[in-house]
Amino acid sequence: MKFRIDNLQYCNWSRDIFQINREANLDAVHVTIVYHEDFDEFIQRTKEWNKFFEENSDLIFLGKNFDDIEKANKEKKTAIFFGFQNCSPIEDNIALVEKVHQHGCRFMQLTYNNQSLLATGCYEKNDSGVTNFGRETIKEMNRVGIVIDMSHSAEKSTFDAIDISEKPIAITHANPLFWHKALRNKSNELLKILAGSGGMLGLSLYPHHLKNGSNCTLESFCEMTAKTAEIMGVQNIGIGSDLCINHPDSVVEWMRNGTWSKSKKFGEGSQNKPGFPNQPDWFLDARGFDNIEKGLKKIGFNEDEVGGILGNNWYNFYKKIL
Amino acid sequence: MKFRIDNLQYCNWSRDIFQINREANLDAVHVTIVYHEDFDEFIQRTKEWNKFFEENSDLIFLGKNFDDIEKANKEKKTAIFFGFQNCSPIEDNIALVEKVHQHGCRFMQLTYNNQSLLATGCYEKNDSGVTNFGRETIKEMNRVGIVIDMSHSAEKSTFDAIDISEKPIAITHANPLFWHKALRNKSNELLKILAGSGGMLGLSLYPHHLKNGSNCTLESFCEMTAKTAEIMGVQNIGIGSDLCINHPDSVVEWMRNGTWSKSKKFGEGSQNKPGFPNQPDWFLDARGFDNIEKGLKKIGFNEDEVGGILGNNWYNFYKKIL
Repeated sequence: MKFRIDNLQYCNWSRDIFQINREANLDAVHVTIVYHEDFDEFIQRTKEWNKFFEENSDLIFLGKNFDDIEKANKEKKTAIFFGFQNCSPIEDNIALVEKVHQHGCRFMQLTYNNQSLLATGCYEKNDSGVTNFGRETIKEMNRVGIVIDMSHSAEKSTFDAIDISEKPIAITHANPLFWHKALRNKSNELLKILAGSGGMLGLSLYPHHLKNGSNCTLESFCEMTAKTAEIMGVQNIGIGSDLCINHPDSVVEWMRNGTWSKSKKFGEGSQNKPGFPNQPDWFLDARGFDNIEKGLKKIGFNEDEVGGILGNNWYNFYKKIL
Repeated sequence: MKFRIDNLQYCNWSRDIFQINREANLDAVHVTIVYHEDFDEFIQRTKEWNKFFEENSDLIFLGKNFDDIEKANKEKKTAIFFGFQNCSPIEDNIALVEKVHQHGCRFMQLTYNNQSLLATGCYEKNDSGVTNFGRETIKEMNRVGIVIDMSHSAEKSTFDAIDISEKPIAITHANPLFWHKALRNKSNELLKILAGSGGMLGLSLYPHHLKNGSNCTLESFCEMTAKTAEIMGVQNIGIGSDLCINHPDSVVEWMRNGTWSKSKKFGEGSQNKPGFPNQPDWFLDARGFDNIEKGLKKIGFNEDEVGGILGNNWYNFYKKIL
């Protein structure tokens, strides 16, 4: 079977977007359900999603296991897998790892840019790696079946997580550093170790992670994909578009600042460009998967390889972990 | 005036203990009000303390500023200053720093043994120093008037805190490493830098911080004090006894484990000695201040120096910060 999976979206959810994702033939989407929320606020988000599932049951349902991807494909729906961009919903409590899993969480970043109780984020000056509580949490995430996601983590912390975790981990949405210098992008060495441990990289379509930002060309993206495949092996690469459609700029401000700072931080943006950047014209939304498919074929990937990158590699990863 | 201050106690509070503290002529005690509690749980603790203040108004009252120490001395009561051993009550929210101050908090440790959102604890493998959120929080603690306490922090984090803070910081309860090797005790270099910045060290009477533990002699403690005074200057030394009277062992288990681990950690204890250790017989409770007074005089400190160590140095520190 051939699956299409976008392994990271954080949109301002609506029926329109669920329809677009179906038009893009997405069998599964890993959606960010929280950034800085605590446990109670996470539960609130799941209630909001219950309403989405009820009102859009012809388009989406909550995904829990890998076979929900097969089910979605058969029923022409999109399985929605919940993920956290920060570990704040487990607060300082190891028992909440199992609780968040029971409420649908299947991916959790150990950090979001800053230091967390578990590990160091990529915006900190120094990286002390995975903490005492982090080691306990990774063990528990392995046990209950939540994927460790290190997209926003610093490098030593990521190496530690790969080393400590008994199951392969993921970088759901980032690009290689060799292509575009950004705190969020990853070194060749890290990508090799990640791939060697069976881990996955989801290539990002978020302009701050792209060479030339919003003006990045499809050709450049596909060349980067080809070089990344040489480094990691094509079977360890997927898409994690990081699409943030229809949000007001106040949302990216909140993503960056949470409640931790009295002065405004601009993260990957700047004082002059504080808001969400424009998507490149060949990936305005998930329907851009078709363009990527063409681009990857053009650059020389065969049918199987393209299918792997656009979804089957993530499917195989889900099958191993979930 | 001559004040007596114990700058750290965490007892199983009761009228008996407030009476003992008065018998010891303590004008002020910095009490630990939370370990791992979040903001709401901290508020709960303040309500419990309101009851203590109401029922024991002849013995104690809530201290807010340095002149409450003078008031306590005049009225023959003990001013109780609230402190946190972890930063968990401010959660991930900079706005809560001012809130906890409004509810009486005057000391806050940036970490308790493990990594926090602000800095690294002394039980972690690696120490990345004060974090992004930590820098913001120190600035805010300086602004509202909460003392930065690094007793349970790792060394680089402590150097960072001294460097970042515009006001002197404190190590309210620890001893010098040269005297007794323990993760919680502090290096000569750190003590020098601390003193150079106007900071204070509160000498601990907790057996795990003492040479020969429960069998530590008064003479050895006073010799250590004399050597510490050579390193730091006598005016930067006080007492922070870390007295934990009348608690069941379940409390020390909770202090060490909080909710972050599924396996039991023993902290400064061990599997064979998991509980609270016995106090040395010359410091069973705060009335041991009299023994320390004699011991310090015997080893050669003059009247002023002894008065400084037993309270006036802390009073002067409070006067600068609170």
